[in-house]
Amino acid sequence: MPYRAPVTDYEFLFRHVIGFDQVAGTERFAEASEDMVTAILTEAGKMSEEVMSPLQRPGDLEPARLENGIVRTSPGFADGWNAIAEGGWIGMSGNPEYGGMGLPMTVATSVNEMMSAACLSLQLAPLMSQGQIEAMEHHASDAIKDLYLPKLMSGEWSGTMNLTEPQAGSDVGALSSKAVPNGDGTFSVTGQKTYISWGDNDFAKNICHLVLARLPDGVPGTKGISLFVVPRNLPDDRGDAGVANSLKVVSLEHKMGLHGSPTCVMQFDGATGWLVGKEHGGMAAMFTMMNNARLGVGGQGVGVAEGAYQQALTYALERKQGKSAGGSIADHADVRRMLMSMKADVFAARAILLSCAVAIDMQTATADADWAARAAFLTPIAKAFGTDTGIAVADTGVQVHGGMGFIEDTGAAQYYRDVRVTAIYEGTNGIQAMDLVARKMMDGGDAAARLLDEIEDHAEHARATLPELAESVWEATETLREATEWLVDQKDMNARFAGAVPYLRAFARVLGGHYHLVAALADPDGPREKLARFYINALLPEHAGLLAQSQNGAGDLYALNLEELAE
Amino acid sequence: MPYRAPVTDYEFLFRHVIGFDQVAGTERFAEASEDMVTAILTEAGKMSEEVMSPLQRPGDLEPARLENGIVRTSPGFADGWNAIAEGGWIGMSGNPEYGGMGLPMTVATSVNEMMSAACLSLQLAPLMSQGQIEAMEHHASDAIKDLYLPKLMSGEWSGTMNLTEPQAGSDVGALSSKAVPNGDGTFSVTGQKTYISWGDNDFAKNICHLVLARLPDGVPGTKGISLFVVPRNLPDDRGDAGVANSLKVVSLEHKMGLHGSPTCVMQFDGATGWLVGKEHGGMAAMFTMMNNARLGVGGQGVGVAEGAYQQALTYALERKQGKSAGGSIADHADVRRMLMSMKADVFAARAILLSCAVAIDMQTATADADWAARAAFLTPIAKAFGTDTGIAVADTGVQVHGGMGFIEDTGAAQYYRDVRVTAIYEGTNGIQAMDLVARKMMDGGDAAARLLDEIEDHAEHARATLPELAESVWEATETLREATEWLVDQKDMNARFAGAVPYLRAFARVLGGHYHLVAALADPDGPREKLARFYINALLPEHAGLLAQSQNGAGDLYALNLEELAE
Repeated sequence: MPYRAPVTDYEFLFRHVIGFDQVAGTERFAEASEDMVTAILTEAGKMSEEVMSPLQRPGDLEPARLENGIVRTSPGFADGWNAIAEGGWIGMSGNPEYGGMGLPMTVATSVNEMMSAACLSLQLAPLMSQGQIEAMEHHASDAIKDLYLPKLMSGEWSGTMNLTEPQAGSDVGALSSKAVPNGDGTFSVTGQKTYISWGDNDFAKNICHLVLARLPDGVPGTKGISLFVVPRNLPDDRGDAGVANSLKVVSLEHKMGLHGSPTCVMQFDGATGWLVGKEHGGMAAMFTMMNNARLGVGGQGVGVAEGAYQQALTYALERKQGKSAGGSIADHADVRRMLMSMKADVFAARAILLSCAVAIDMQTATADADWAARAAFLTPIAKAFGTDTGIAVADTGVQVHGGMGFIEDTGAAQYYRDVRVTAIYEGTNGIQAMDLVARKMMDGGDAAARLLDEIEDHAEHARATLPELAESVWEATETLREATEWLVDQKDMNARFAGAVPYLRAFARVLGGHYHLVAALADPDGPREKLARFYINALLPEHAGLLAQSQNGAGDLYALNLEELAE
Repeated sequence: MPYRAPVTDYEFLFRHVIGFDQVAGTERFAEASEDMVTAILTEAGKMSEEVMSPLQRPGDLEPARLENGIVRTSPGFADGWNAIAEGGWIGMSGNPEYGGMGLPMTVATSVNEMMSAACLSLQLAPLMSQGQIEAMEHHASDAIKDLYLPKLMSGEWSGTMNLTEPQAGSDVGALSSKAVPNGDGTFSVTGQKTYISWGDNDFAKNICHLVLARLPDGVPGTKGISLFVVPRNLPDDRGDAGVANSLKVVSLEHKMGLHGSPTCVMQFDGATGWLVGKEHGGMAAMFTMMNNARLGVGGQGVGVAEGAYQQALTYALERKQGKSAGGSIADHADVRRMLMSMKADVFAARAILLSCAVAIDMQTATADADWAARAAFLTPIAKAFGTDTGIAVADTGVQVHGGMGFIEDTGAAQYYRDVRVTAIYEGTNGIQAMDLVARKMMDGGDAAARLLDEIEDHAEHARATLPELAESVWEATETLREATEWLVDQKDMNARFAGAVPYLRAFARVLGGHYHLVAALADPDGPREKLARFYINALLPEHAGLLAQSQNGAGDLYALNLEELAE
């Protein structure tokens, strides 16, 4: 089904909900006026609708394949990549000195969301380049920046992330790839990496791999890891892609979805690489890339949710059935419940995503510690809730289609299969939740408390006009505060981890209620208030059960031993 | 991964949780002693493990295909069908006069669950035959019974259900297939039917289609529909499959999963059929078949959940990662949370499923109206919660696998894709929920109230030994009672329908808590009590949010008009 870019939704969120005026008010992002942002979103939306959306099905039906060691991409993907590159969308948040547009992450995140709604498997390619661009901007030497960044931003070259090894998934520190100095400033990198998204393609002139590996004097664990850029083709003296490096694609994975995106097993056999960042400082550089990518993956979830919602609504409006005289199944209460839930959750997930992006922009523009803490706190929520929402909405979309949902021809099933990976890659949603209750609460819960204070202040303010909705949000926030304090009080980290996932989900539910309330205030008696009413009355109450589970501790979890689990 | 039949779980449930002694105490099922039941479950479990489980992957990798109008099934499926037939598992609950085993539905449901865990796509074939057998036993003439039932029960012939037409899915009454009397007692049936599971195969000598069609004097809607048996090959004078009837498989659907099961578009062109049941009484006959099939589909969900749990646990126990010194990821709190949730929900869904089967058996054996009402009330819950659990547990199973979950080689993804249809076919789970709050509450909520009384009585009884768990179950039941009364009070059916799905889910959550509590009492300080503790403390609280939503009414749902939904 053709995708329609929800530009007016972004405009409403930017203007009324996420406080983008703060970003536009900084010197750094002074150019991001409303008109400019609208023009950019409109242009990116048009490209997503017209160029990327038609590639969604071909990417599924004719997966990328490995031919004599070279990845052949799905029909039309090369043209799609070129359109993305020519629009400037790869380097849209990159430094203008190197050819980027210097846009705020808030805008870039919206554009990424639209592109992923239109064609997730292709959008993953520029997302990988964007992560690499940001890592290089922060950590690479000037020589590397001068050589690589313009080519990455223009799309002449593409970028990948090489972290995972068969024995080292969530536990990156267990990796065994090695790097040995060659004595000329370069390094020989050897090892095997798995799950490398877009590890090769046939549309960029060079593929730049950022590879984590251990130097001979690197200690075990994450502190002994360094980051290297290892290009498929060694740059020649003019900086163009030259002779082949010692690396290859071993195989492609056969996946449940995302068929248009080649997921590679990569083999590095003494490949020449250059250090990015400091020796043994690889994890710091990688975290830059991962945080960017986590927000991006959260946006993938929101994008697919939007696409799946649009498709299900179109189907429901066309499908006649039952007693709805003259009407469609969209008039049936249970179908309407599904559609309203989808729409309300897309709004909540998008508001959380873009609020996180605003915090990142404010951190960039002001270097303020509170904004940095806010960005760090919201990132795992934006990633996990965005992708959970993508999965849940795609699932509901299948259900709205009835029998047609299980048939591949409609596309509803593809959303469901494709989006499933987003809860897994860039740190599983379990890892996100553990990050939230551990690392992001090392401040004793201050960042969380500041956010809860803001939500309650707003609810107090909303009481005058929307007393019942405001009260519901305020009460939910108080319950969340108690759960937060309970978690912070747990010295046994396992007690926190046991409740991490339900806690993160509950936090997102309450945040969603907050943003819906903000939207309702901005649109009295209008559609935004009506949607908020449904969310707060029907979906927000879910937080209570989740928070009960989040404070249950680890005891019940380990009561059965491993043998009893198997009985 | 090889499947291990959970025979000891069934034994525990039969003995301690679902009250199977009542069934075995009836004259009708007096032969169903503990020893006999154990022998049957063991034998069926062995067949599921050894014959069916190895067919799971081949069925996915080499889907059934249409070749010159004939369905060619996946490699090994013919042998699998023969093994099921030779074991007597097709006719296991059929009348012994016609070659059936006459087993209680409780036992048959357990066997079906094991077979569907081992290979869902193949198991759907005997499930279809079973529904046909039951419909014929109740509604067909002696001549039809004598001819068809022995062949269906032995597996020489197979059966299908032909309800759906392109414009008539959930709304069966909108069908347009016609039947015209031929004057010799037979009818000419014409029309197109879609989503016909196992509409053809290459292992049975004949395929018997039960087809809903309208006689010339049939009124519009469901009251003008009649049921016909329309065999692919017309029986010759010895009752063997003779010349071809005027019907064909037009095409097979390309589905997200269940590739081993051919989903056919069937065309009937004046095909010869025989009336089953009374003229215009097709829906009554079809409901017999559908109720049987609904319980069967619930069992499919539970079966896949069990299979997915076993696979995820095996993976988790083998996978080393992170700081769990010497241990596996099963020691990580979040992985343990996922595993415990899966196991606890499998138990709850299975207990609900088998309690529904017990009620059906008691209805059959005693013709008692209360048992009939109990069976009718539990059927939509068993179907919807069983399949929701199948989907949720398969989803969690993918997540436990991390990146490997998205790769097809492990089989985790296949469970996820295959089971998704179970929430759709045999009446979507939304239809089940509407059935629960409308038809199953036409008694003013009496059937619900009797069940809630029993749960509270048991909780009172449990207070002495497990005070906290008993109190939680008792309180949840009270909350559920209030929601039930609220629903019954709604004269506007749309207010009920708006909350139907969350209400059904909450009811299942509370029922699950009840059965866990029963199990805990039977196993003091043992693994069953420990699992119950986790379920009641961590999962049961979900009911609160669901019940809040279930009482929210339809107002919020229709606040946005259709144009606003699309904005």
